[in-house]
Amino acid sequence: MSTTDGLSEADKDRLHAEEMKLRQAERRAERATKKERGGLLMVLTGPGKGKSSSAFGMVARALGWDMRVGIVQFIKGKWQTGEKHFFRRFPDLVTFDVMGEGFTWDVQDRQRDIAAAQQAWRRSCELIVDPDYDFVLLDELNIAIRNDYVSIDEVVTFLKNRPRDKHICITGRDARPQLTEIADLVTEMTLIKHPYDAGFKPQRGVEF
Amino acid sequence: MSTTDGLSEADKDRLHAEEMKLRQAERRAERATKKERGGLLMVLTGPGKGKSSSAFGMVARALGWDMRVGIVQFIKGKWQTGEKHFFRRFPDLVTFDVMGEGFTWDVQDRQRDIAAAQQAWRRSCELIVDPDYDFVLLDELNIAIRNDYVSIDEVVTFLKNRPRDKHICITGRDARPQLTEIADLVTEMTLIKHPYDAGFKPQRGVEF
Repeated sequence: MSTTDGLSEADKDRLHAEEMKLRQAERRAERATKKERGGLLMVLTGPGKGKSSSAFGMVARALGWDMRVGIVQFIKGKWQTGEKHFFRRFPDLVTFDVMGEGFTWDVQDRQRDIAAAQQAWRRSCELIVDPDYDFVLLDELNIAIRNDYVSIDEVVTFLKNRPRDKHICITGRDARPQLTEIADLVTEMTLIKHPYDAGFKPQRGVEF
Repeated sequence: MSTTDGLSEADKDRLHAEEMKLRQAERRAERATKKERGGLLMVLTGPGKGKSSSAFGMVARALGWDMRVGIVQFIKGKWQTGEKHFFRRFPDLVTFDVMGEGFTWDVQDRQRDIAAAQQAWRRSCELIVDPDYDFVLLDELNIAIRNDYVSIDEVVTFLKNRPRDKHICITGRDARPQLTEIADLVTEMTLIKHPYDAGFKPQRGVEF
């Protein structure tokens, strides 16, 4: 039962107009208190689907505003992915580096994984300090940190001293608390239902 | 303390190679049981940031595979958004319809909201049954349903009988249980930290 049950349509419309007027005023007053602008540090984590895809959606938004975007993928290696195919079509606007050679269980060579992750982190630092970039995405950096391929202390120290003129987005499950603590935005993707569990293969346009 | 503490680097490397070999075998065996392919119905909901941006990231992936994409935005109205600016650059691949005239508290006219939402739903149905589209995004449909502008029963009945040759993604907080029940993928974006709460204005390339 909603509170508007039993009201005529005309009454619902009038009530709605009054409520929306109030809400508009509230939102405007609230909005007026939001004065900060500047580069955000964002962390997208959790076991649900949507971490990397959300980051790539922000990349699309940034490109819509003619920002320049730098992307480093820490894990996906030689995989053919829709995101790589697509964003590499805009080489003037997007730098898309993929480090490593695939998921770690396909490599089975820890030293090679570490070297690839370290190289990816060095590249990330270059992009972050480069004033040409407005948005830097470090895709699956959390996995490289979790596997101890990149030092969390080094990452946190670097990010604390980052230039504040660009957005930085870090994805991957198991984000370390030291990282979420210094982030401006943290979303945890909570898994409610995943097609893989229902027998679906990972599919183009959705998972890669 | 990790179980590998105290091991030499060489021992860690050897242990890692053995573990990864096992994991690779496990993953391959598991993967072999995943045989289903076909259009997924996806619902991205919850209060955290990343619902629409995740959907737009999947759009980018789909475009990377040369799929054709139809987008209907139920709420954003006349807003200038990065996603609109960007995806409208590919009119041969993306149809981008924006219905309505902004957030409901700016309109204050319930009948106009209802008419816009109904029109957006009719457009959504056209895109879903059109064999030319491989991926259809109904952005913020959950809000139109929550506001009773579009009937949940009508949506569920239509989607149950949808063609299975394309992916459909529905976003917006407060997804109805009748909808998540019939979905193949459901992620709840859990809000851990949002820059708006720390005084930041919504920013280009991130929130729109």
